[in-house]
Amino acid sequence: MTTRQDLANAIRVLAMDAVQQANSGHPGAPMGMADIAEVLFNDFMSHNPNNPQWANRDRFVMSNGHGSMLPYAVLHLTGYELPIEELKNFRQLHSKTPGHPEYGYTPGIETTTGPLGQGISNAVGMALAEKVLAAQFNQDQHAIVDHYTYVFLGDGCLMEGISHEACSLAGTLKLGKLICFYDDNGISIDGDVIGWFADDTPKRFEAYGWQVIRDIDGHDADSLRVAIADARMEHDQPTLICCKTIIGKGAPNKQGGHDVHGAPLGKDEIAAAREHLGWKAEPFVIPSEIYAGWNAKEKGAAAEQAWTAKFQAYQAAYPTEAAEFERRINGQLPANWQESAQKAIDAIIAKAESPATRVASKNALDAFAPLLPEFLGGSADLTPSNNTFNKSSKYINSNHGPSQDFSGNYLSYGVREFGMSAIMNGIALHGGFIPYGATFLMFSEYARNALRMAALMKIRNIFVYTHDSIGLGEDGPTHQGVEQTATLRMIPRMSVWRPCDGVETAIAWKAAIEKTEGPSCLILTRQNLPFQARSAEQVAHIAKGGYVLKDCEGQPDAIIIATGSELALAMGAAEQLAAKKIRVVSMPCVDVFLAQEAAYRESVLPAAVTARVAVEAGVTAGWYQFVGLQGKVVGLDTFGESAPAPVLFKHFGFTVENVKAAVESVL
Amino acid sequence: MTTRQDLANAIRVLAMDAVQQANSGHPGAPMGMADIAEVLFNDFMSHNPNNPQWANRDRFVMSNGHGSMLPYAVLHLTGYELPIEELKNFRQLHSKTPGHPEYGYTPGIETTTGPLGQGISNAVGMALAEKVLAAQFNQDQHAIVDHYTYVFLGDGCLMEGISHEACSLAGTLKLGKLICFYDDNGISIDGDVIGWFADDTPKRFEAYGWQVIRDIDGHDADSLRVAIADARMEHDQPTLICCKTIIGKGAPNKQGGHDVHGAPLGKDEIAAAREHLGWKAEPFVIPSEIYAGWNAKEKGAAAEQAWTAKFQAYQAAYPTEAAEFERRINGQLPANWQESAQKAIDAIIAKAESPATRVASKNALDAFAPLLPEFLGGSADLTPSNNTFNKSSKYINSNHGPSQDFSGNYLSYGVREFGMSAIMNGIALHGGFIPYGATFLMFSEYARNALRMAALMKIRNIFVYTHDSIGLGEDGPTHQGVEQTATLRMIPRMSVWRPCDGVETAIAWKAAIEKTEGPSCLILTRQNLPFQARSAEQVAHIAKGGYVLKDCEGQPDAIIIATGSELALAMGAAEQLAAKKIRVVSMPCVDVFLAQEAAYRESVLPAAVTARVAVEAGVTAGWYQFVGLQGKVVGLDTFGESAPAPVLFKHFGFTVENVKAAVESVL
Repeated sequence: MTTRQDLANAIRVLAMDAVQQANSGHPGAPMGMADIAEVLFNDFMSHNPNNPQWANRDRFVMSNGHGSMLPYAVLHLTGYELPIEELKNFRQLHSKTPGHPEYGYTPGIETTTGPLGQGISNAVGMALAEKVLAAQFNQDQHAIVDHYTYVFLGDGCLMEGISHEACSLAGTLKLGKLICFYDDNGISIDGDVIGWFADDTPKRFEAYGWQVIRDIDGHDADSLRVAIADARMEHDQPTLICCKTIIGKGAPNKQGGHDVHGAPLGKDEIAAAREHLGWKAEPFVIPSEIYAGWNAKEKGAAAEQAWTAKFQAYQAAYPTEAAEFERRINGQLPANWQESAQKAIDAIIAKAESPATRVASKNALDAFAPLLPEFLGGSADLTPSNNTFNKSSKYINSNHGPSQDFSGNYLSYGVREFGMSAIMNGIALHGGFIPYGATFLMFSEYARNALRMAALMKIRNIFVYTHDSIGLGEDGPTHQGVEQTATLRMIPRMSVWRPCDGVETAIAWKAAIEKTEGPSCLILTRQNLPFQARSAEQVAHIAKGGYVLKDCEGQPDAIIIATGSELALAMGAAEQLAAKKIRVVSMPCVDVFLAQEAAYRESVLPAAVTARVAVEAGVTAGWYQFVGLQGKVVGLDTFGESAPAPVLFKHFGFTVENVKAAVESVL
Repeated sequence: MTTRQDLANAIRVLAMDAVQQANSGHPGAPMGMADIAEVLFNDFMSHNPNNPQWANRDRFVMSNGHGSMLPYAVLHLTGYELPIEELKNFRQLHSKTPGHPEYGYTPGIETTTGPLGQGISNAVGMALAEKVLAAQFNQDQHAIVDHYTYVFLGDGCLMEGISHEACSLAGTLKLGKLICFYDDNGISIDGDVIGWFADDTPKRFEAYGWQVIRDIDGHDADSLRVAIADARMEHDQPTLICCKTIIGKGAPNKQGGHDVHGAPLGKDEIAAAREHLGWKAEPFVIPSEIYAGWNAKEKGAAAEQAWTAKFQAYQAAYPTEAAEFERRINGQLPANWQESAQKAIDAIIAKAESPATRVASKNALDAFAPLLPEFLGGSADLTPSNNTFNKSSKYINSNHGPSQDFSGNYLSYGVREFGMSAIMNGIALHGGFIPYGATFLMFSEYARNALRMAALMKIRNIFVYTHDSIGLGEDGPTHQGVEQTATLRMIPRMSVWRPCDGVETAIAWKAAIEKTEGPSCLILTRQNLPFQARSAEQVAHIAKGGYVLKDCEGQPDAIIIATGSELALAMGAAEQLAAKKIRVVSMPCVDVFLAQEAAYRESVLPAAVTARVAVEAGVTAGWYQFVGLQGKVVGLDTFGESAPAPVLFKHFGFTVENVKAAVESVL
């Protein structure tokens, strides 16, 4: 008769065999957490291997992503489209089983993990999305949004600072359907964690307002069952289940030590483990009764079917809401989006105002947000500075007032830039929302790896960064992002918009909203920027990332390329150089411009014109791809200073005269 | 008679007047924490305004750096070289009073703060440096290193994840002389923090093993005195003193609300505050009895004198140790450094080995570390992978064994990249050490703003990043840094070394050790790289950041520029193109090369040669400054994949054939 132990051991052998075959990987965590996974998936997890996209599935996140063989094994065993051949190809090129779990590669993988602390933070975003979506859509007797988010995490995740940011906020927001399993095995790569990690973790999480279930034997199915049941019954607090485990459990000579963490066990130890576990089958052969014990296809189909019946009843009672729910879950923009957005942009053009682009951003939000109930906005405690709270914003409310109200669409994330960004990734992954979140451009650095993860996962996420460069003024070099715009541009697949006026700002927002295959950054000024007049064709070209804003007759003598707050300087210099044929190119989004067809790029920057100057109040290295060795860059390769913005622009040479001189020097 | 209240009010009026005059700044925190500062500085702080460099001074860190007018006011009042004119020039260009406190600008400012959470983390580094330096130098009856580190911090610092990393480690390391004041005013920029920050902070810090002194009235001098005295008596735990304060206290109509946080109070409210505080003097006029009450010059001179006497006794008893102490505190390298380091490098050249550069780095450390007892090394839980524990390393020991031993020189920082880096900044700022710390290149992103702060402060700090780019192999794109090297290069003043073999690695270490005006990054491979043979002149040129490694007769037909693991591909391509005149330039450090004289740069990259190819397994944008519009970059503008490294190099086109083809295409 097949025991729970046997079922769990299937994870263990798959993990040790796949790591051995790849000669690379981490057997320790999958073997240590196998029993927890077995209880969670076989007794509690509501999911459907036939349809990994089912909207109301429970979410599972392996925050200690190096233990990737655990979810791969579970997904294979429960019946997802992940055949045994893929497990044999663990960590090989273009397999569905990359070294760390990657969203989009493997059915059932809900987020890409590996960079520690971010998985749990993504999960906080998923649980938050569930709670907000439920508040927005559920009706009496119709709980169409109602699922749990489960997380596995280890010491590494708990040491990372981001775990503090995300878990503190999860406690404040009372995310009762978030349930985390702490793999408390006492080991990290440098050895026994007690030398560098002596936190009383249960106490720490109680300080965040979590329910903490202490001292669970992570290898005892009965204790785990009770703990998970208790966790599910607590609706006002997230739960941390602290599981004492033995890393690499099952490898009789190596378990419990750090050698088992991140290297193959070796043939001898694997043979000993087979013996120890009483596992007779060959590598990658799973006995049919083990498959039978794990298979969740029938159970999963039934669960989804029950939900579908529920949703049909909802649909009958609330047809508009049901249609809207489906639209949002599918990530489609409203039918009237294009038309309405264009109207809004036309109105902005007609007004011809000259606000700071952070104010222009608010204007764009005021226009677009009524069309987009899927917006879930916020700021890392800079709402009044970032101008992200718009006319359609409504606070999500936990402790603001006497009662909770999660039907809103705006969150004060607190001073938690990295946490906010990773939570936004989780919201986007959950579905039903377009998240946006803001801070000062400088503090994109605190969050940088979460932006990269959004790009790697190709998810739509909008990062709003105000107070760019020296225009920030008196706060000084600690707050003046001179290299941040350039470095954000280097993240593959990230669109970085640095608009020069209100029109470019609105179009940047529209592009970010419409980009379904990755994130965008909007880089905005603190200070006012002048409106630029454009033809209809020029307006249409903004979305191409770079376009001719001011042209001359025939082939230009020189081209000035500029972005954001420096565009006006380029226009001024071109005016003063009226005797010459000067073209001004506005390039609000370098990566989008580079993605245009060669013919369009050539039409904007003809190869024949090598007298080129780029102007941007930031580091220069990235601009030589446009101006070459013959060109010049008017930029800033040092840190800023603390002084009023106009003083700084003059001090650092961002003047019409200086741009003019630079153009003359290349002519 | 002058009361403590009057003394504290001097901070309040200076803060509100300076912010008003600048029409910019943050009066709330200085006014709210004025009483705490008054008690700390007048009753406890051991410092000497005549000599801000006194080695054994207590350190003071304003982690909530936006409250910069508090330290400026205190430094002015206690007698530092910070005349009232500087306070009138608050936040103006080249004043000593920039918007946020900046190390090197203002005597008495111990670190640059503003980016929240980093000040407290720097302070953990300072307290750690004090404890280690004391263990290394103090002798029975001779406690020449014996001072406290005091920190002011607010809600923002406590919400930031880095506060978790640093404070958790501080508790584990039992840093008993670290004393922090939490400005618990309940307000952040978005409003009342309860909506987004509901932590039980005292409980959280108890979970870290801190002494927590709760519920102190931050405006009551007597309570503060008792709390500070209790904090100083606890030697095995850092202390958090939780001070209930009123933000902007003294502004009768605005105090206690978030309007007072970050904007001038306005003339009317300032007049009302003067009335409310009973403060008669004009702006920037401080009554002489107030100055008298604050002046610490005499007390400070006496304190330093007493210490000097102590140090002289130490000198008499331990002359060698005293000389070594002075050398280290002054940041001088040992007298035999140049000679010994050169010998070590010669030995490495003679061996002609071809290890991975992470192993070459260990070899360099084995050679250099015996010369440099000031090394304080570590890793963010990747010691066996980073190879940073060398033959001279000895663990700093808190919970490793039965008794504490802090005389070591190596620390397991735990999985805390940002915390480690900011702690390293604090160690460097304290003096007596050259810190180095390691993680995978990818996780430089978690720490990025701390690297920037090191560069901004011009402090020597060495960041070791192994497992660069796709050479990392199977761990996949989450761990493969393809844009990180390029983005690190964009931090002003940061030297980024990506050596191609063991010789370049050793010379990179030497350069980083000798660079006294800023930090360095060493980017190292997981995989083996072949030894390159060089003439003595070529070896000498490595330190210039870029040099000709393989040359041809006369003017080259083409130049290949390469770094790190791709250098060998360039050499291979040049060999295969024997019919052409090909020069290969190794450029291990772009910023150092760019800082060379024009004549040297021209000798390496003659303007006449425009057929150029750059080769680096990373994003391409930065290389066009060397290859121009006519050149080519063999690089990687997408994310990596999970597969063995050799497979990936081929998959992404990093082959001799492809480099050769690129050269042919530009010829």
